[in-house]
Amino acid sequence: MKDILRSSLLYDFYGELLTKHQQEIYEEVVLNDYSLGEIAEERNISRQGVHDLIKRCDKTLNEYEEKLHLVSRFEKTKEQVERICQLADENNMQDIENIARQILENY
Amino acid sequence: MKDILRSSLLYDFYGELLTKHQQEIYEEVVLNDYSLGEIAEERNISRQGVHDLIKRCDKTLNEYEEKLHLVSRFEKTKEQVERICQLADENNMQDIENIARQILENY
Repeated sequence: MKDILRSSLLYDFYGELLTKHQQEIYEEVVLNDYSLGEIAEERNISRQGVHDLIKRCDKTLNEYEEKLHLVSRFEKTKEQVERICQLADENNMQDIENIARQILENY
Repeated sequence: MKDILRSSLLYDFYGELLTKHQQEIYEEVVLNDYSLGEIAEERNISRQGVHDLIKRCDKTLNEYEEKLHLVSRFEKTKEQVERICQLADENNMQDIENIARQILENY
């Protein structure tokens, strides 16, 4: 999985467990692709400080995944839902397809 | 939802985030129904100490649920899977039923 996609999934699942400050900076740098320099200037902290904060967040997010496995479980559920949708579609079972898609929306 | 069922679900989802020590005592008291007195004696700590540890674990588990909502999402997914299974069963779609059941096993 590409780094940015993985970071984004980890953040979707565990971002709420970071502090508000960490969330804001992580979103700006990792999800919205601002540069370390831009955020450092905006926040009046050092470039190195922003870099370290991001590293620490990545480590925290990965530690939660090692314990809870939500991203890997989600990937598996997604495959199963897609298989159900395919079978439902082949058999004109629109009801089933709709409910199966809702399962992914819960996440 | 009954207290013990809810505690058990919260522990299933977030127990890994407690310390090993907390996990052992929580399992003994809450899941295996040993008395505070029994555990206090076995561990050579006070009855009050066991009581406080359980309270603290409950608080921690509930705080994770407030942030990640895994138990409530699971409850919703379970309903959707059951509805899919019912529709699949009515239409002799055993394949779909099997995959749907696997979705719950991921959890």
